[in-house]
Amino acid sequence: MANTRELKINAQRLNDTLQSTCTSWGAFAAPSTGMCRLTLSQEDKQVRDWLVAECKSLGCEVKVDQIGNIFATRPGSVKGVKPIAMGSHMDTQPAGGRYDGILGVQSALEVLRTLHDNDITTHLPIALVNWTNEEGARFPGAMMASGVWSTHSSTSLEACWDLQDKEGIRMKQALEDIGYLGDTKADYKDNGLECHFELHIEQGPLLEKEGKTVGIVTSVQGMKWFAVRVEGVEGHAGATPMPGRADAIVTASRLITAVRDAALKTELGVATVGVIKSDTSSQATISAGVDFIIDVRCTTDDMVDELASAVFKAFDKIIAEEGNSTSYAIARSWGMPQSVFHPRCIDACRSAAIKTAGEDQIMEMKSRAGHDTAWTSRVCPSSMIFVPSKDGLSHNPNEYTSPEHCAIGAQVLLDAVLEYDEKARTGQYQSS
Amino acid sequence: MANTRELKINAQRLNDTLQSTCTSWGAFAAPSTGMCRLTLSQEDKQVRDWLVAECKSLGCEVKVDQIGNIFATRPGSVKGVKPIAMGSHMDTQPAGGRYDGILGVQSALEVLRTLHDNDITTHLPIALVNWTNEEGARFPGAMMASGVWSTHSSTSLEACWDLQDKEGIRMKQALEDIGYLGDTKADYKDNGLECHFELHIEQGPLLEKEGKTVGIVTSVQGMKWFAVRVEGVEGHAGATPMPGRADAIVTASRLITAVRDAALKTELGVATVGVIKSDTSSQATISAGVDFIIDVRCTTDDMVDELASAVFKAFDKIIAEEGNSTSYAIARSWGMPQSVFHPRCIDACRSAAIKTAGEDQIMEMKSRAGHDTAWTSRVCPSSMIFVPSKDGLSHNPNEYTSPEHCAIGAQVLLDAVLEYDEKARTGQYQSS
Repeated sequence: MANTRELKINAQRLNDTLQSTCTSWGAFAAPSTGMCRLTLSQEDKQVRDWLVAECKSLGCEVKVDQIGNIFATRPGSVKGVKPIAMGSHMDTQPAGGRYDGILGVQSALEVLRTLHDNDITTHLPIALVNWTNEEGARFPGAMMASGVWSTHSSTSLEACWDLQDKEGIRMKQALEDIGYLGDTKADYKDNGLECHFELHIEQGPLLEKEGKTVGIVTSVQGMKWFAVRVEGVEGHAGATPMPGRADAIVTASRLITAVRDAALKTELGVATVGVIKSDTSSQATISAGVDFIIDVRCTTDDMVDELASAVFKAFDKIIAEEGNSTSYAIARSWGMPQSVFHPRCIDACRSAAIKTAGEDQIMEMKSRAGHDTAWTSRVCPSSMIFVPSKDGLSHNPNEYTSPEHCAIGAQVLLDAVLEYDEKARTGQYQSS
Repeated sequence: MANTRELKINAQRLNDTLQSTCTSWGAFAAPSTGMCRLTLSQEDKQVRDWLVAECKSLGCEVKVDQIGNIFATRPGSVKGVKPIAMGSHMDTQPAGGRYDGILGVQSALEVLRTLHDNDITTHLPIALVNWTNEEGARFPGAMMASGVWSTHSSTSLEACWDLQDKEGIRMKQALEDIGYLGDTKADYKDNGLECHFELHIEQGPLLEKEGKTVGIVTSVQGMKWFAVRVEGVEGHAGATPMPGRADAIVTASRLITAVRDAALKTELGVATVGVIKSDTSSQATISAGVDFIIDVRCTTDDMVDELASAVFKAFDKIIAEEGNSTSYAIARSWGMPQSVFHPRCIDACRSAAIKTAGEDQIMEMKSRAGHDTAWTSRVCPSSMIFVPSKDGLSHNPNEYTSPEHCAIGAQVLLDAVLEYDEKARTGQYQSS
């Protein structure tokens, strides 16, 4: 057995595997490096099947739970204990890139391969986890399946199963269709993890701007989503005089502008409308109804509530200005409270990052994007490692992180896992 | 042969036929009286098949042209001459009603039935015309097929054939699929009409407001449509700071509000955005692109151009205010110039309306909605008859015109056709 302090991941293999699996399953036509690998699609099935086969070939036991989460566990010397997990997701946005989520799972695989090649026996089992539907792009609700597993999400397993995609396919059917409706209970109490590490791209510009290589993530900002329905009165676009109109698109437009304006007034809060749908698809019809979703994120839950209040106060003012001809209602709201990561995991990542990148290359930071680790952190010690995103771009076909930065991230992930395992072996941690 | 001055349409039969065919083909679930009978859909095929069979049973010769327009002609005593036409359309908006277009075709059928039952032989042939895709709801471009037939539309037959619906089905394919890709040339020069009358619901509130029963339509306002594309930069809704964003939905929202505001400043001009589509369907993604269509209508073409100029001037100001982070472009524009109807047809409708409704029940008016007759008026004498729309509603499931008003409209249509025929027989008109 090799000295675990000297173990090196294989940067070339990591990059080759990441690029080739992306090219095979979900890639846009070259030269774009964009990806469309919607959760539980055929592309998702194929990369899942490949991942399961790879993990089995490395001696892992593979479990799939009721919401399609994949747990591939490499045994340690102690039996009957929970594994140290490395998790992320392989689904993408409809026009996403090759790194958001994918890098975390591919690096976890690279860690397992490195342990296998060097014939390492860890103290605790080590698991790779692929979480289902992190993006929430096909079935609305981001970080969906880690939320169910943590039992802290307001959306239950059954409610998730019942969600429909644009074609009317329910999520449970989609899980069955690709063979990933497993029988392991989707509940951390039945299928627990000792701790959870996630390597991810930053999806923002800060590391690049500060010239740093590794982000040690200590928390995730709070988030809330509001599905808004605006109602007006349908009418003929030519024959209905302007003054008497109740035009849902015009009112929705004013509300959407107000969302942006309210967020601009905050220090760091963000609010976004990414989805909009009008009832009518006719140029000659005044729309009677528009649906859109507001995504609100701030450092703390209080700030989220404050920004949301400001948004809805502005909405009420606009409705009054429009003479109450149109109205709005919040059709559904859901969210994820702010998360604070565990010092034990943060410390393991920090010392691993210092070893690989050097102290001056490290930056402590909050995550402004949601992640599966925000849910795992509620039920087991968790933290995250960030690597730079070129130009801060993400959810975009031009999302890019260099092979060098990917390799550094994977090495830090390996070393953090090994440090956690070593401290567990030498009794420095109380089992969580 | 009965005295044509005393001929009466059958009000009960008209209403029964209109309601039962609507219920059979395209109706919303009761108790709604809404309709979704998109052009060239299965529902449209079924009502077309029924109409063709009915017209044949009345002794009509039926021709279908290259864009699916149906011409059902009842012979007159003179052979080899063009028919007096009564035309409108049977397609509806996705959430339309039972009267817009449908009343005109059903009343034309009722006129043919009345002539047949009373064994009338007219001087000129009398034709019923069902124009394809008046609504432009499935294949964008309203009054499409009458425009092609008139050869005055900027969209050619081939360009129409090439248009795709939301499922990617091309219009030519859709015509073939339902068996209505005919071989008669879609060109008035090959398949002409002596004149064109159209009975239609007002689709506005004026007749009701003035307490009148029949509108004698003398002109149609000018119209232009602009397909606008807004471009921004895709990004992560959580991790992209507000100040640096190029959010296409926010910019599009500001532009749409500006369209409304510009139209409000005019006397009678209207401008509407009924269609909006964002590139992204993810709540967590800043949209990189939004498409929408602006529908502009004014009494004269000059006023249309003036309002459009004001809209685009406002757009340029907004783009500048947004720091040019986002941009817009006009992807396509098309339109229909103002139309002035023919005194010969207007007079025939006026004297027919006086006879049935009485002089005090009549109102001369402009049409603020576009109609197939706006195109026919460019190549043959044409005019229209309006009956009241309850609450001015149209393009709306609650669109309603009473059976009494429908019957009055059909009677006026019959009498106008007979007066035109009589004047033609007695040589009072030069053939057009």
